[in-house]
Formats: sequence, structure tokens, C-alpha cells
Amino acid sequence: MRAVVATPRGPALRADHPLAERPGEAVIRPTLCGICATDLQLLRGYLSHAGVLGHEWVGVVERAPDPTWVGRRVVGEINCPCQACPTCLAGRPTHCPHRTVLGIDGRDGVFADRFCLPLANLHPVPDHLPDEAAVFTEPLAAALQVLELVNLHPTDTAVVLGTGRLGQLCARVLALTGARVLGVDRDPERLALLPGGVARRSPDDSCPPADMVVECTGTAAGLAEATRRVRPRGTVVLKTTVHDAEVVRTSPWVVDEISVVGSRCGPFAPALRLMASGAVDPTPLISHQLPLDRAVHALSVARDSVKVLLTP
Amino acid sequence: MRAVVATPRGPALRADHPLAERPGEAVIRPTLCGICATDLQLLRGYLSHAGVLGHEWVGVVERAPDPTWVGRRVVGEINCPCQACPTCLAGRPTHCPHRTVLGIDGRDGVFADRFCLPLANLHPVPDHLPDEAAVFTEPLAAALQVLELVNLHPTDTAVVLGTGRLGQLCARVLALTGARVLGVDRDPERLALLPGGVARRSPDDSCPPADMVVECTGTAAGLAEATRRVRPRGTVVLKTTVHDAEVVRTSPWVVDEISVVGSRCGPFAPALRLMASGAVDPTPLISHQLPLDRAVHALSVARDSVKVLLTP
Repeated sequence: MRAVVATPRGPALRADHPLAERPGEAVIRPTLCGICATDLQLLRGYLSHAGVLGHEWVGVVERAPDPTWVGRRVVGEINCPCQACPTCLAGRPTHCPHRTVLGIDGRDGVFADRFCLPLANLHPVPDHLPDEAAVFTEPLAAALQVLELVNLHPTDTAVVLGTGRLGQLCARVLALTGARVLGVDRDPERLALLPGGVARRSPDDSCPPADMVVECTGTAAGLAEATRRVRPRGTVVLKTTVHDAEVVRTSPWVVDEISVVGSRCGPFAPALRLMASGAVDPTPLISHQLPLDRAVHALSVARDSVKVLLTP
Repeated sequence: MRAVVATPRGPALRADHPLAERPGEAVIRPTLCGICATDLQLLRGYLSHAGVLGHEWVGVVERAPDPTWVGRRVVGEINCPCQACPTCLAGRPTHCPHRTVLGIDGRDGVFADRFCLPLANLHPVPDHLPDEAAVFTEPLAAALQVLELVNLHPTDTAVVLGTGRLGQLCARVLALTGARVLGVDRDPERLALLPGGVARRSPDDSCPPADMVVECTGTAAGLAEATRRVRPRGTVVLKTTVHDAEVVRTSPWVVDEISVVGSRCGPFAPALRLMASGAVDPTPLISHQLPLDRAVHALSVARDSVKVLLTP
């Protein structure tokens, strides 16, 4: 089958990649996939992933141990935990030390004709939700994880630093709390994509100190910038994994009693609910839609675009 | 009067330093003072403090706008906020941007024959609590601030990294929650000072991943070490202001969804209650007690000692 794999020389489209079938798992045919910043980081060597790329998808179950799943349109959680270790039993399966992660760590991803995933990871997609929205379930869940970890009050002010792929989704879910949300970016085109309820600011504009700053710049400089923008006892949420070590002055965190909270994968069910109800519409973020055969080009386009989708 | 001031060439004992009287404030005669790691950092240039050093103390009110305070034995909070700005009115007076801080920032400290502080900062000391305990109120309050900011459950495991001055007090208050507390230090003498309920570990011993790690090493390496020791979704509490910027890999915070929480000054009233009830006895931490006239020597001794007190 066709598959896009990470190689030391960059992404490569293979015509004859074997499907790595896993006993007891569903075989899924993806109908639409999304390119994420993590895919681009994996191509720079993050986690040394050497298999098929891709973890944002919507698709149809082709084969399954439980035949009632066959033919259903689904999305699916990307972490595959062991369900038996102390971390899993403590209710933190996404942190299972034995986990594989779809298209990221120890498990082939979705930029291919077929891939495998456990049935326990799957969520049926509501019939009226188009593929173009459902493909955003994983990144929208990641945005919701900010609110799973930190309580943003309706009277708070939140800054989203960087309004790329993830920043756009974070701004949308934070705004649903009723809080005042400001998106900060130097790029006027990305600012223009923010929904009506989110204020648009250039990094040079003065902003009031925020109760929460969500760092979505994907750059090493973002954490220091977020620290400058948060109020004493406020919270900086780190959404982007910066591969390199960075030089950080930690004394402002102590003096101003700032919390820095790392946040990764989030809950799929509320993401589907918010898109199904219309409270979040991610489709204006789609900048490009390219066929899987042009995946290598698409990955290069994704560096400077908001959301690039792949059609297998 | 005598006073110990920070100069670019180190600490200096002055015989004729003027008392900087402030209208409306109490004049206090300190009866016992403590040397803190922050004093040593100020001498290395932190915050450019050029006045009298010292912010841990117990003493007697000599003059006060309200005469009922005169003659009372007191301790006192070190932050002097404006009580009028948005930060003060939001209930965060210790973060007032206009504050002065006793012996640290914009206000002469307590290593002197007399000093001034607003009446609003003072707490009467229970009669049966000796000066040797009461002088620990400020650092014990700082240790309690960990629990003011983060909920440590009775079933949790907490690691205190570094069992010097502040680590000793943090270990004591964390142990009162019922949580399993481990003190980690390379120095067997400091480990021996930990109370019975706290497990003693060398940095080379294996420890289970902790729900909370309190970083009290005072070193730039402490944060990375704390990150290694905390469980996914656990909390690292930063207690020590490291003056220099440090190189930090932040991606483990995102991947493991770790919270890093800065913590500074804490509440005096619970610190006094815990010492008055006998739940915390800090006096075994006293390693040296020297007269104010030997303060320059005492500050040098404090670099390698647990708690050095000064008697004015």
C-alpha cells in the first residue's frame, strides 16, 4: 500500500509499504488526514520515529474483531496504552510508559492507504459532521486539554501566543468559557482567521497582564515571552514541544509565583460534541487540501500554512 | 546604630548607619535574626539591594502609631504593599508591583539595632514560643506556601530535593499532610536533621516517581533533576530563586503534562500556629548563633550551614 514514512533524509512516499497488522485491532481506511506541527518535528528527528507519519484523521473501519464496527465512520485517540500498569490503573493511560502512539512513537501512522488501531480508541463520528471538521478532532481535543488541566474563569483574561494551527483551536475553546481572549501573532493573515469573539493583537501591542497565557508559538522564545505576559500567580500553558533545550530564567516564576503547565493530548468526546453542536467550526482553518501522492510537497507547504489536509 | 549593609564588595558592618524612619510605621528592636539563602544571593548582586540586609527576625515594638503595640513581642511579614493598586485589590498584596520588601528590595532590613515596618505586617508571638522558634516564622511560612498553591493529597508521595534551610522546613510541613515524604540530599549531616517521619535518600538511590517534587537545592541543575523525579501530570514546586538563567528542556513538561509552580512568601498565621502547637519544631535546625558584630563572618558561615542566627 502507499505510505508516507519518516527517513533520515526527510519524508518519503512509498508505494509498497506493508500494512503492520496487529491482532485484535481494527483496520481503518483513512478518508481525510491532517498535518500537525508534531509531524514536522518528527521529520527533524524528534523521538526518532522511523515509521509511517500522521495521527490526525477521519476514516472508515474496514475490518474489526467486533463486526458491528465495520463500515462505521470514526476518529480515534492516538495513544495506545497497556491498560495494566500502575500509570494506566491510576487513570492516566495517555501517560502509560509502555504506550505506542499513532504515527509518533512505535506505531505506524495514518498517511497511508490503511492503518491499525485498537477498537477502544475509536469514536463514531456524528452523521452530520463532515470529514473536513471531524479531521480536527485530535487537535481540538488537544486544545480542550488546556481546560482539562487548568480552570479558566469566565472573568479571566487569556492570551494565546501564536495563532497557527493549535493556537487557533485553543483561542476558540478558551473563548467558549466567556473569558476575554486575545490572540497574539505577527502574521495578519493568521490573526484574521481568529473568530469574532477573540481580540487580535500584534506582539508589539500592549496587553494587560493575563491570568493565563497559552504558548502556541512552537518556538524556543515563546516561554520567556509568555512569562512576560502573565500576571503574578497566573498560569502559562505550554502546548508546543520544543525539541531543543532552551535558556530560561526561572527566577520570575518563583518571585511572581507563576505556574507553568505542560499540556498534550486531550479528550475526544467533548471535541466531537463541540463540533457537532456548532460551537466550534474548525473548517475555516483549512488552507490546503492535497492528495496523499503529493504528501512530501504537502509537508513542506505545512511549514508556513495553517492547516494542510491530505486525501488518501 | 549598627547595621549590616550589602556593598559591591560584600557585606559590611556599619557602626553609624542612620535608622530610616517611616511615618506611620512601627520602630522595632530585633532580638534574634536568621540568615537566609536570599541574603547570600543579594550579596551576589540579586536585585541590586544596597541597604541593610536581613528579613528573618523576632523582636519587640519600641515605638508605634498605635501605642497598644509598644512592648509587644512580634514577627512580621516582609512585603509592604501599596494596598491600593489592582494587584492588591485582587487579593495578591505580596505581588504588589509597588511593594517594598524588608531587607530585599527598597527597604532596610533587620540585621541592625532597629528597623521599621508597618503595623499591618506584624503578628504577636504567643508567650510560650521562644525567640529561637519564632525567628523561623518567615521561612516556615514560605514552606507552607507550597501547600497554599498546590494540594498535596494524604495518599501522595512528595520528594524534597535539597535538605538545607528551606528543604528542612518544607519536608516538615509536607509530612503533616500524611503524604509519604522523601528528603533527597548528598550530605548525610543534613539528611540526619530530617524528622523521623521523613525518609532519607541519597541522589543515587532509586525513588518512585513522585506526585510532587519540591526543588530546594538552590542550584541551576535542580529543575532538571526535579523534572526527572516527578510522575506524569505531577507538580514540581520551585522554591529557590536561581539568579542565573538555566538551560532547560521543556519538552518533558509538555509530553508528561508536568506543572512547574513557583512559590515564594507564605502565610505567617499558620506558621505561628504550627510552632505554637508543637507540630513543627524548627529549633534543631539552628547550627550557629553569633552576635551581630560578627555578622560578616556569620554570612560566610551560612553558605555551608543549615541555620545561622544573629543576636543583635
